[in-house]
Amino acid sequence: MAELVKVAVDAMGGDFAPAEPVKGAVEALQENEKIFVYLVGREEEIRRELRQYTYPEERLSVVPASEVIETGEPPVAAIQKKKDSSLVVGLTMVRRGEADAFVSSGSTGAVLVGGQAIVRKIKGVERAPLAPLIPTEKGVSLLIDCGANVDARPNHLVQFAAMGSIYMEYVMGVRKPTVAIVNIGAEEEKGNALVKETFPLLRACKDIHFIGNIEARDIPKGKADVIVTEAFVGNVILKLYEGVGSVLIHKVKEGMLSSLRSKIGALLVKPALKQTLKSFDASEYGGAPLLGLRGLVVKTHGSARAVEIRHSIQQCLQFREQALNEKIQQYLTDPSAEK
Amino acid sequence: MAELVKVAVDAMGGDFAPAEPVKGAVEALQENEKIFVYLVGREEEIRRELRQYTYPEERLSVVPASEVIETGEPPVAAIQKKKDSSLVVGLTMVRRGEADAFVSSGSTGAVLVGGQAIVRKIKGVERAPLAPLIPTEKGVSLLIDCGANVDARPNHLVQFAAMGSIYMEYVMGVRKPTVAIVNIGAEEEKGNALVKETFPLLRACKDIHFIGNIEARDIPKGKADVIVTEAFVGNVILKLYEGVGSVLIHKVKEGMLSSLRSKIGALLVKPALKQTLKSFDASEYGGAPLLGLRGLVVKTHGSARAVEIRHSIQQCLQFREQALNEKIQQYLTDPSAEK
Repeated sequence: MAELVKVAVDAMGGDFAPAEPVKGAVEALQENEKIFVYLVGREEEIRRELRQYTYPEERLSVVPASEVIETGEPPVAAIQKKKDSSLVVGLTMVRRGEADAFVSSGSTGAVLVGGQAIVRKIKGVERAPLAPLIPTEKGVSLLIDCGANVDARPNHLVQFAAMGSIYMEYVMGVRKPTVAIVNIGAEEEKGNALVKETFPLLRACKDIHFIGNIEARDIPKGKADVIVTEAFVGNVILKLYEGVGSVLIHKVKEGMLSSLRSKIGALLVKPALKQTLKSFDASEYGGAPLLGLRGLVVKTHGSARAVEIRHSIQQCLQFREQALNEKIQQYLTDPSAEK
Repeated sequence: MAELVKVAVDAMGGDFAPAEPVKGAVEALQENEKIFVYLVGREEEIRRELRQYTYPEERLSVVPASEVIETGEPPVAAIQKKKDSSLVVGLTMVRRGEADAFVSSGSTGAVLVGGQAIVRKIKGVERAPLAPLIPTEKGVSLLIDCGANVDARPNHLVQFAAMGSIYMEYVMGVRKPTVAIVNIGAEEEKGNALVKETFPLLRACKDIHFIGNIEARDIPKGKADVIVTEAFVGNVILKLYEGVGSVLIHKVKEGMLSSLRSKIGALLVKPALKQTLKSFDASEYGGAPLLGLRGLVVKTHGSARAVEIRHSIQQCLQFREQALNEKIQQYLTDPSAEK
């Protein structure tokens, strides 16, 4: 039997823990026999959930952790204090090489801080970006960086572009992914100081397929596979995406229920609409990887259901099988220094 | 008869010029007898359009301008070269006090550059922000700044907050408008250097109703009346709003037409849906004012139809009647220096 890919899952993180993380883990195991899952968290609660399912027991192990880091807690203090939290225990397993990856729907801040502090960055990586997949008309794009380290420098963005390209190519299977930088116009001379300085550096990069600026309105159209931006702007894009989407869908529903005539129409339209909108739902594709670490950390939505956990575990498999970190390492090594 | 508010309208700007600007101007005149309109542009083309309508001729005048600034032209060069363009002629009328305001659907860059260079800023205003109204679940919010001057400093943002509050209160009729600054978290300690420096300054402002940070996901929910941000981020928000909206609505339509059953449903749902989505369309509320100038300049969408032009002319009336610039001037004057 080939070596299994070991994924630690935070069974206590997110709005629907432990039910949904446990369910997602079981589904991932049923779907793919190359996966081994560690469910990290309060043993009794996890076992209670597990009792509902039939699953390959030889590929699942419960790792006890008595504490839980809550969403509101200040990340740095929480990581330092709660040594027996599911988050710290899971990340430590990755650091020690006991697990290849860690998936969590817990506090974003704590996952970001813990990922960098416990798992640590690959040598040469200046910042570890959080890179969610966002839905577009054509499929998904990788938005890099949406993390907590704002006010990036141009060389950070260049590394993000490279790591993002490697991820989209080898994990998502996009051949020669296109890379664009978020700007306020399509012309090269536009932009703020950061973008103006970064643009020529990206153009000079041989390892990426840089196509220039992208205006925010073209992001949902899927005009680039990798969308490079500084974390503040990335965070705004990510959250506005969710915000506009949910308000609009709410408006559509409201409109449909506003008269008897439209209510009847809504019943007829519903199944087709549900199917189409599903394709515009990022959770169908998995969580956001925190790239550039010595192991993979995937942050799923706080409201993640089993399907997102399952897809994120699948991402980890791809990540490991495609030797992503070795590829990132290789990119970072100066080619002239190679033997 | 009370003094009329004189609005110069760029009859040549935008995708549907001169037809829609002329139509919008005529509708505004028919709707409100306090308005006088100057239609600026190629006289013959404007007169040809006007022939279709009955309107109060004593309140409309055509001002000839032979040139047109195209969307692609570099703004600074275009403003300098095309002295007889509808844009330069209209802005010059505001500068000379021949018109109170100027409305244009032409090149955003040229309107921004021309507004500042020709109409010029009110003494004490450091930057003239472009402040579009964006649709929310509750109505509209003012997003300030979305202009071309990026990399703002904290004191710029404070002026934006004040001017935006005055605009929302006196032009849009929002009593004691709430002000929030765009940030990547709700907590005060979060953010980039600019936001961290600006936050205490806004909190110390007595003239505004500052409610703290706003995350991008809460903007569409209408959680603040005035959304303060630096122009790069503002531009991203504005364009992503349009982008996500149009892609989602496209998806909804696609879903509705995907089966015979859903097609029948779509017919029943359509009128109600159209009405609801109309309330989420910013063009229903008018264009984006360029604030802080010695006169009002309103930029409407390049794709503006008559309704948006009409609403923008109405905005100008409110602006003048409420003596907005005098109020901005008053705010800028140090109260201790007053007599």
